[in-house]
Amino acid sequence: MTSLTLVETPALVLDRGVLERNCDRMARRMTDAGVRLRPHLKTAKSARVAEVATRGHFGGITVSTLAEARYFLEQGISDLTYAVGLAAGKLDVVARLQAEGARMKLLTDSLDTLVAAEGKADELDADFSFLIEVDTGGLRGGVPPESGVLLELGRYLHESPRLALAGVLTHAGHSYHCHSPAEIEQVAEDERAGAVRAAQRLRDAGLPCEIVSAGSTPTAIRAKSLEGVTEMRPGVYTFFDLDQMALGVCAIEDIALSVVATVIGHNHAAGRILIDAGGLALSKDLSAAEFLEDAGYGLVCPLDATRPLEGVYVDSVHQEHGLIAAKDGPPPYDKLPVGTRVRILPNHACMTAAAYNSYHVVEDGLEVVDTWDRINGWY
Amino acid sequence: MTSLTLVETPALVLDRGVLERNCDRMARRMTDAGVRLRPHLKTAKSARVAEVATRGHFGGITVSTLAEARYFLEQGISDLTYAVGLAAGKLDVVARLQAEGARMKLLTDSLDTLVAAEGKADELDADFSFLIEVDTGGLRGGVPPESGVLLELGRYLHESPRLALAGVLTHAGHSYHCHSPAEIEQVAEDERAGAVRAAQRLRDAGLPCEIVSAGSTPTAIRAKSLEGVTEMRPGVYTFFDLDQMALGVCAIEDIALSVVATVIGHNHAAGRILIDAGGLALSKDLSAAEFLEDAGYGLVCPLDATRPLEGVYVDSVHQEHGLIAAKDGPPPYDKLPVGTRVRILPNHACMTAAAYNSYHVVEDGLEVVDTWDRINGWY
Repeated sequence: MTSLTLVETPALVLDRGVLERNCDRMARRMTDAGVRLRPHLKTAKSARVAEVATRGHFGGITVSTLAEARYFLEQGISDLTYAVGLAAGKLDVVARLQAEGARMKLLTDSLDTLVAAEGKADELDADFSFLIEVDTGGLRGGVPPESGVLLELGRYLHESPRLALAGVLTHAGHSYHCHSPAEIEQVAEDERAGAVRAAQRLRDAGLPCEIVSAGSTPTAIRAKSLEGVTEMRPGVYTFFDLDQMALGVCAIEDIALSVVATVIGHNHAAGRILIDAGGLALSKDLSAAEFLEDAGYGLVCPLDATRPLEGVYVDSVHQEHGLIAAKDGPPPYDKLPVGTRVRILPNHACMTAAAYNSYHVVEDGLEVVDTWDRINGWY
Repeated sequence: MTSLTLVETPALVLDRGVLERNCDRMARRMTDAGVRLRPHLKTAKSARVAEVATRGHFGGITVSTLAEARYFLEQGISDLTYAVGLAAGKLDVVARLQAEGARMKLLTDSLDTLVAAEGKADELDADFSFLIEVDTGGLRGGVPPESGVLLELGRYLHESPRLALAGVLTHAGHSYHCHSPAEIEQVAEDERAGAVRAAQRLRDAGLPCEIVSAGSTPTAIRAKSLEGVTEMRPGVYTFFDLDQMALGVCAIEDIALSVVATVIGHNHAAGRILIDAGGLALSKDLSAAEFLEDAGYGLVCPLDATRPLEGVYVDSVHQEHGLIAAKDGPPPYDKLPVGTRVRILPNHACMTAAAYNSYHVVEDGLEVVDTWDRINGWY
């Protein structure tokens, strides 16, 4: 193959050894907790990563788009939970995927969606299986565990000849904004307890609730108990990033993803080193800034390392330009002459990876040992 | 074709009538100023848009990646300025494009790059033509107009058997952060004067400087004089966006780009309406927030209009979820029931468009009259 010293920049790099360690650790943790791991592939969007992430578990995955569902189905993964609230207009595509062998679980918190779905099911002569989305504090999708509408949705699904009630699903997205391990533990417990409570209320009403699905990377890692939960859906743990590091759920050496860029200029008047990786190559996500003062759009490492140069970060981005600054004083012009390649640790792996169609896979070195594809877009 | 009521969401929509009006206006303005228009296609990345944007001018364009260069060359556009500081490692690709008929201008502010380029030129048996990047206040790439290194770069290029000095180029990116038309006018004059001064110094030193290239959308629109400038390179004016509107260089009806999304839930506890367009579909860019208090990640319009619902905006985004809020009180649940489609006016068109491979082209209505492709990525 080639080497990171030669690939065209900007380039997305994935360290397979780190990926495998991250995945093995999560798989063991979930096995120890007696819970099925249904990794969320929205971060990696790659069949080769799915292969690593499902090892030791049942093989089902979570997806965030129907484009992912189609791609993974083509790669032989058929147990798919589409974990974004359904728009009923997407059911034509879902029905086609099911006809091709997908076993799909859909998500909603809306009776209007179920009514529309039932109409579509008749029209398409198809059956659809739903999870009810429960809000356990994330304030995104979902009905409260104690709400009346939870039971209404459950009954509608159970009584429909075409629709099925598969269980409940929650995502404690607010775990990304916790300021201590103890706070994440509490969010994890709220997530678990809320999902289990919703399931219990459905069961108490005589409704089936086989699946109790929860999880985010922080809660999967910090949860003290997963009692009553049947599956967890973490995703970003496969790669990790500065945001997760800042949250305290990984160490810097667990970050498997980086972007290789080339130094294209020194602007001494501005006190900045310019690289050919900007807002498109790194994303404009600033999640880690909530916790890390000088993370900017990424931390800057030498090409042959994934340890950042002390205090050196991407301070600002334009579409194709990144501007490197240093915490104290001017950036290290002498260490990073024009033409040098650097490696940027991303702020938020899901957003950074989304700009690329493939990964340059390395194994603890500069040699590119493989190229893995990704599936972007929605259809 | 189809209709915006039926396309899979999220979907990128381009209004051709508005695009044509924006392009015609800029083309006339540049003609009136006696300046060549070399539109920057980094926003649109589309051959069909290039066709509209080059009308009435000489046909040359500006690109931000070599993937764009290859794509536009294949579409018959051969006069290409690659307006990102060159990494010499990219010259193999440049040489191939030139061999296939591209007439390329490259950019640098670094002697190290020129030395490397000369080595590459020998190795590849190719000639390369450069513009010297001048910093007229943007504090990104470029050498100061009064600097000694400007003349060093000019001499090196002029004396090299393989390299050529084509002129100077500047981009007043700081025009995006001006707080009044008068301030933009001043930045435009600084941009003009700096570029012209750099050209004059090269000519005074006996060096050729045919091209004096400047421009951003705000400065192209607000400049009182373009005396001495030979070409302008605005880009985002083709589509415009909330950021440009907030800067006062376009009206809301000049925004040609929007994203169609579907309402997937109502979270009354959170006071939010959920749509299936999140951080990937809209981008995480918040440029307009510098000027507009409640622009968030985009303003929300009914599907059949590009006038926003008063005070209704995308307040936050997750990877595939957007959360709609209203300025005063709860969002309009009754106007936007689950399943409704909305149109989002983007914060920053360049970043939003980058997530899509094509445009659904409309003509002042819901009917999709055409599909235009885009070229993303870098290679």
